[in-house]
Amino acid sequence: MNGGNGTYSYAKNSTLQRKSANAVREKIDEAIAEKLDMETLCSSGKSFHIADFGCSTGPNTFIAMQNILESVERKYKSQCPTRQIPEFQAFFNDQASNDFNTLFTTLPLDRQYFVAGVPGSFHGRLFPDSSLHFAYSSTALHWLSKVPEELLDKNSPSFNKGRIYYSNTLDKVVDAYSSQFAKDMEIFLDARAKELVAGGMLVMTMPGQPNGIPCCQTGMGMTIDYLESCFLDMVNEGIISEAKVDSFNLPMYSATLEEMKELIQRNGSFNVEKMELTMANGESNPQSYSSYSGRMLQMHLRAGIEEIISKHFGTEIIDDLFDRYAMKAEDFSHRLQSSERKGALLFVVLKRK
Amino acid sequence: MNGGNGTYSYAKNSTLQRKSANAVREKIDEAIAEKLDMETLCSSGKSFHIADFGCSTGPNTFIAMQNILESVERKYKSQCPTRQIPEFQAFFNDQASNDFNTLFTTLPLDRQYFVAGVPGSFHGRLFPDSSLHFAYSSTALHWLSKVPEELLDKNSPSFNKGRIYYSNTLDKVVDAYSSQFAKDMEIFLDARAKELVAGGMLVMTMPGQPNGIPCCQTGMGMTIDYLESCFLDMVNEGIISEAKVDSFNLPMYSATLEEMKELIQRNGSFNVEKMELTMANGESNPQSYSSYSGRMLQMHLRAGIEEIISKHFGTEIIDDLFDRYAMKAEDFSHRLQSSERKGALLFVVLKRK
Repeated sequence: MNGGNGTYSYAKNSTLQRKSANAVREKIDEAIAEKLDMETLCSSGKSFHIADFGCSTGPNTFIAMQNILESVERKYKSQCPTRQIPEFQAFFNDQASNDFNTLFTTLPLDRQYFVAGVPGSFHGRLFPDSSLHFAYSSTALHWLSKVPEELLDKNSPSFNKGRIYYSNTLDKVVDAYSSQFAKDMEIFLDARAKELVAGGMLVMTMPGQPNGIPCCQTGMGMTIDYLESCFLDMVNEGIISEAKVDSFNLPMYSATLEEMKELIQRNGSFNVEKMELTMANGESNPQSYSSYSGRMLQMHLRAGIEEIISKHFGTEIIDDLFDRYAMKAEDFSHRLQSSERKGALLFVVLKRK
Repeated sequence: MNGGNGTYSYAKNSTLQRKSANAVREKIDEAIAEKLDMETLCSSGKSFHIADFGCSTGPNTFIAMQNILESVERKYKSQCPTRQIPEFQAFFNDQASNDFNTLFTTLPLDRQYFVAGVPGSFHGRLFPDSSLHFAYSSTALHWLSKVPEELLDKNSPSFNKGRIYYSNTLDKVVDAYSSQFAKDMEIFLDARAKELVAGGMLVMTMPGQPNGIPCCQTGMGMTIDYLESCFLDMVNEGIISEAKVDSFNLPMYSATLEEMKELIQRNGSFNVEKMELTMANGESNPQSYSSYSGRMLQMHLRAGIEEIISKHFGTEIIDDLFDRYAMKAEDFSHRLQSSERKGALLFVVLKRK
């Protein structure tokens, strides 16, 4: 994600992600009210620890943290009316390269929790055993820990020539992406299972994929297809080389509900409390891009993936690339609006056994 | 402190502070071995939480953390040989404006602890009740939370005209500094008393002041006196205004052993396990500046206080100011060498009742 507070920063270009977060706010509140047993979870005098995995730079992470805290507090008051409300400690996690300086200097002044930032990949352990009560991850788990190696191997049947994603490409490429996602989720679930106390809650939201629908018909697929076509135009114009595009793949994957179910079952440490794929239907849909102009879509995409593209292609192509994208994306919202499947959000609530 | 990894960064210019840290390493190890009761402090399966208050950007904080962790581990092994070594969680605290990005990207790769950064002033609460086992602060507590207001008031008898510190000035100015330090320490001790578990340890090291010795005869006093004379030269040459110097005071204070004793007693939550003022005698002394060139002293001072000076005077005077300081400081080491009191380090080990 782009750090800082500038024009292309994630902090200023994450309203789409915030819409997702707002849409699931009520669902999380419900899950806490119905499923979180505060009586056993939080003994008198102990503090309550909440972690956001993949927090980026805010402000979305602060809004989500505040909402969760209020829900937990409400549940606590109703379940343990005679006990004193626990103190809250909020842990904001992201890669060590995340812009924590911006995160820390923009913390809400009226927050009612103690703050800690936790640097490091959530594809691995980050907290001591049984030290968290509530873990949360919003639009972050679709990022893979790495590009599957076989996609870059010219001699592999999964070589993803002329493509930067698994939309409109070979089944073997889709398999490689899916298999990397499975490995990553296995590590993620295993780590969180150790870090959460028994009865602790893990809530995950991420872009999802309706079963049987090809990637190219989803919002995410279309978005990347447009970007890919900008890259190919630049190859044709001799601005970047074909080999450069062949060796680049976006490390993102949208799982289906069925894939996710299987991974959770295989891990075995969690009970599934709620699990759904929210389909896009009209304006109220959190993943609906239809109300956004090409320029705005470009700003959002740029805030999220500029860094990863710069690393591979160099910073000099960035403005050109995203200008092209903004132009193409102007008709994007119409295509999305005419589609029944504008995108989908995977929403999962688990409880540590 | 100056962030980043550049020429004038704190990360590259903190060897003096590291010498202090190394000198107290053995003392801390001793205190842990003799005074920390791991059996009651860390029940089976629980993690052990260490916090560094005023960590800056490293690498000193990582070295200190590693040393403390090893000492605690040794004590645990000897006291509870049949139990499994606890997991460690290390909290690195400093102001929200500290360069946490540099801290997080330079973390030791072979560390054996979970990491969290905690942004915020240690003159206030930062952690939940009874959530820390070991708190540590190295060369940070001499920084005051603010300049005592009366020093800036032209109509006050404590107005610190033509001075930037409490060396060579009115008794009332010294009193104002001392009183601000007392207020700050009161808040610091009160907060740490709440955050530490019963039996938890608080170790503090900071520049100290031998009783009855005027500030101007200590290493710190001399250092600032030289800096002050550079400011006054610049006033005489018309580069900065007199009013600008009159309205600037360095918010640092070196307490005496007696002052510190009284403040700890007044707080009442801690037992004093060890408390001493290490006097400077020759090369082995942690606060000895005698082996440093003027340029090196300048680099150290600049890394520590450039930011605070820039804020008041503007960045444009910085190079000029520190060039002047480097010139003057060339004979500084000789003056220190000829003095019996080169500086002093206050070392305090407390245990939460």
